Amino acid sequence: MAKEKKVEQITDMEVDFTQWYTDVCKKAQLIDYSSIKGIFIYRPYGYAIWENIQRILDAQFKKVGVENVYMPMLIPESLLQKEKDHVEGFAPECAWVTYGGNEKLEERYCIRPTSETLFCEHFKNVIQSHRDLPMKYNQWCSVLRWEKTSRPFLRHREFLWQEGHTMHATAEEAKAFTEEMLNLYADFCENVLAMPVTRGQKTDKEKFNGAEATYTIECMMHDRKALQAGTSHYFGDGFAKAFDITFTDKSNQRVSPHQTSWGVSTRLIGGIIMTHGDNNGLVLPPKIAPIQVVVLPVAQHKPGVLEAAQTLKDRLIAAGFRVKLDDSDNSMGWKCAEYEMKGVPLRVECGPRDLENGQCVLVRRNDGEKTVVKLEALEAAVAEQLEAVHQGMYHKAKKNLTDHIYEAHSLEEAKELQEKNGGFIKTMWCGDEECELKMKDVAGMSSRCIPFAQEHLDDVCPICGKPAKKMIYWGVAY
Amino acid sequence: MAKEKKVEQITDMEVDFTQWYTDVCKKAQLIDYSSIKGIFIYRPYGYAIWENIQRILDAQFKKVGVENVYMPMLIPESLLQKEKDHVEGFAPECAWVTYGGNEKLEERYCIRPTSETLFCEHFKNVIQSHRDLPMKYNQWCSVLRWEKTSRPFLRHREFLWQEGHTMHATAEEAKAFTEEMLNLYADFCENVLAMPVTRGQKTDKEKFNGAEATYTIECMMHDRKALQAGTSHYFGDGFAKAFDITFTDKSNQRVSPHQTSWGVSTRLIGGIIMTHGDNNGLVLPPKIAPIQVVVLPVAQHKPGVLEAAQTLKDRLIAAGFRVKLDDSDNSMGWKCAEYEMKGVPLRVECGPRDLENGQCVLVRRNDGEKTVVKLEALEAAVAEQLEAVHQGMYHKAKKNLTDHIYEAHSLEEAKELQEKNGGFIKTMWCGDEECELKMKDVAGMSSRCIPFAQEHLDDVCPICGKPAKKMIYWGVAY
Repeated sequence: MAKEKKVEQITDMEVDFTQWYTDVCKKAQLIDYSSIKGIFIYRPYGYAIWENIQRILDAQFKKVGVENVYMPMLIPESLLQKEKDHVEGFAPECAWVTYGGNEKLEERYCIRPTSETLFCEHFKNVIQSHRDLPMKYNQWCSVLRWEKTSRPFLRHREFLWQEGHTMHATAEEAKAFTEEMLNLYADFCENVLAMPVTRGQKTDKEKFNGAEATYTIECMMHDRKALQAGTSHYFGDGFAKAFDITFTDKSNQRVSPHQTSWGVSTRLIGGIIMTHGDNNGLVLPPKIAPIQVVVLPVAQHKPGVLEAAQTLKDRLIAAGFRVKLDDSDNSMGWKCAEYEMKGVPLRVECGPRDLENGQCVLVRRNDGEKTVVKLEALEAAVAEQLEAVHQGMYHKAKKNLTDHIYEAHSLEEAKELQEKNGGFIKTMWCGDEECELKMKDVAGMSSRCIPFAQEHLDDVCPICGKPAKKMIYWGVAY
Repeated sequence: MAKEKKVEQITDMEVDFTQWYTDVCKKAQLIDYSSIKGIFIYRPYGYAIWENIQRILDAQFKKVGVENVYMPMLIPESLLQKEKDHVEGFAPECAWVTYGGNEKLEERYCIRPTSETLFCEHFKNVIQSHRDLPMKYNQWCSVLRWEKTSRPFLRHREFLWQEGHTMHATAEEAKAFTEEMLNLYADFCENVLAMPVTRGQKTDKEKFNGAEATYTIECMMHDRKALQAGTSHYFGDGFAKAFDITFTDKSNQRVSPHQTSWGVSTRLIGGIIMTHGDNNGLVLPPKIAPIQVVVLPVAQHKPGVLEAAQTLKDRLIAAGFRVKLDDSDNSMGWKCAEYEMKGVPLRVECGPRDLENGQCVLVRRNDGEKTVVKLEALEAAVAEQLEAVHQGMYHKAKKNLTDHIYEAHSLEEAKELQEKNGGFIKTMWCGDEECELKMKDVAGMSSRCIPFAQEHLDDVCPICGKPAKKMIYWGVAY
């Protein structure tokens, strides 16, 4: 049975970037709406991207000694309240369970918006001695934050993420691990998702509720807005003291351990879409694409074509690639548009003439580049082309990032640059929250990060004129 | 630094099976209690068992065409109420969210106790044509049921599971798939977990709320109580009609699809513990053991011993086994007891004399059997011994099952047999719920299943004397 439908149109990103984004999420079948506002359904193709992210990240976590656990999804209100800054930040976004069956609960429980408090309660039970440290835990789960606005992948009331929580014997070790995990995220974004990042520290205003320091990786989307793609927090011993967690150190003293937490979420998928996508749909990084290669037989009714296509598919699967053969009766045009929409990194076309010549054609999704390859060299050629897709995607995104970092020496200039170009605006900064608020107020930008790679642009803060402490990046963020 | 502690005593199972079970869960560090009654923390060692179960099952699901998705954790009350039998069964166990942030919700949401209603709502959106069918979805998640009593792994208010939900064009196909998934579970239990099962159908009284038929695998624990280890449900088109899900069939008619769902949970871990454990602790099936082989150097301060142990470990890891080397300063006695407690299937001991002779000693956890092997043949010997452990565990458990199925011809005899021996009591049955209630009342047994492998024991139901329809298994269940 033929299923002849046209690929539905997606809005051009130049016309309406927001609509383009929503169209891609819906039409590439990544996501569906549920009956609760702000809660989305992860459809098979969207979830498969997340599974690939999970698989790769999880192996990297395990390499640095992280173990997975699973904590309760509910937090008693009294537990959430143990750390003052933390509860202040999260309480307004909590969804509260008040009934169990037909009985009103004595204490209400919130659905976890994050799990520091639960981990701390457990750490108190299981940490006794310095020999129990470091304790490096992670969990893959969903969390819930009752936010007012929502967008697929970028802001869900319920979203999937991982949250790592570790305890260390010393502040130095905990700080080093906070940075190690940030670098792990940064390398993952660049090497796996082809998303270049800026690494830096959040200001006190933007840091995580209850943290001493928050480190971040900030990416630039195609529309030159910023996306916070992952964060890593150093807590010092603040939570440990609030939760009365101590251990016996080597000199037999009871002391407090030092803590970190770090997380990335399905927001990364939003980042992938807005970094790499184009007007034909998704463009997926090969390492996390659910389908890396689609094999399309040309003139498939001709003798031998389907069998040859099947053989190519089997060979590529045996070589470890994720492959789909589409031998449906849909037209070649429909199929090409469909797999472009779905962002499949590489298309293999093989028709009667190709087969006669012992060859097939590889077409890259990211730039449309075609390569004719001899059938006997297929596996090596596919590996090479997938690497070329990754590199091409990375360099294009890197250029978008570096081309759109602008230097400003006054508030007015920062505002003008942002209005004209978008992107990151870098300035010096005195360190005062007041200047951050003023930048937001005047230029509509929040501080994105204080980059690790510092430059000296001026001696003074361009906002207040006081001596400058650091260079900072500003931007309009998702 | 030496960490010389004695392995804490666990209660003998003959003295108090319940206490033995709790001791093993706690002391093998599988689980911890949280501050909410009935909700447990899955610790790294317990969670790692679940990860191995997930990995293997997930690959098997994908082989039969199942795709993973993720649905919301919240169900609006009005959605839950769409299927009458379903809501009646689950509403008393629902935890209800009534506040989002500081605002009272217009409609309350329950935390999913199971997700048929959510899947149906989505199916309605995405199923249009017979070409969309079958649609085979699964999700890995946690669910919440506000039950009164709890036990680690066996009954949690929040527990981890997978729930598969499929839609098919015909009743026949859906029924066949219901059975296919039950058989997949049964084979998984036997081939992976070394847990023999009885396959059968639940009575109407015991079937899933809203299902037309529920199939089950029932296992027998060491104390001869029954454990329902997995279920697969056939729904007909009941939910489809309640949710107004239709598709265009090949003759262009709008008709209702036919539905299945099926699930297993972390309850399987409880089953593993109670099927295989002994008075020294856990005994883990090799295929899901987080550590399959522990390498223990004997007299490790002697020159060359540690290096040799490290080499053995590296070789075994390279061969694909999950291996731990314990070169801590704890005594050999402590280490042996520790890894027995943790149920590690195989221990490799190597001391100076072994190494002189170019050999090491393999010790099986399940029966203590020792084998001396030449170092050059290590990998093959380990593979062989792990297989022997699996077989030994399976056959011991199979004997426990078959030895404790008793035939009864009267209610009184059934009661006596259960009191004397425990196990499954098989009788004929007329099919009436009244007789089930009477069996429960008089003999304390629930119906476990109507086995697929039927026998003719009598012409009449031994409870009421009416003509018998089926042979049925009764038991005391977890």
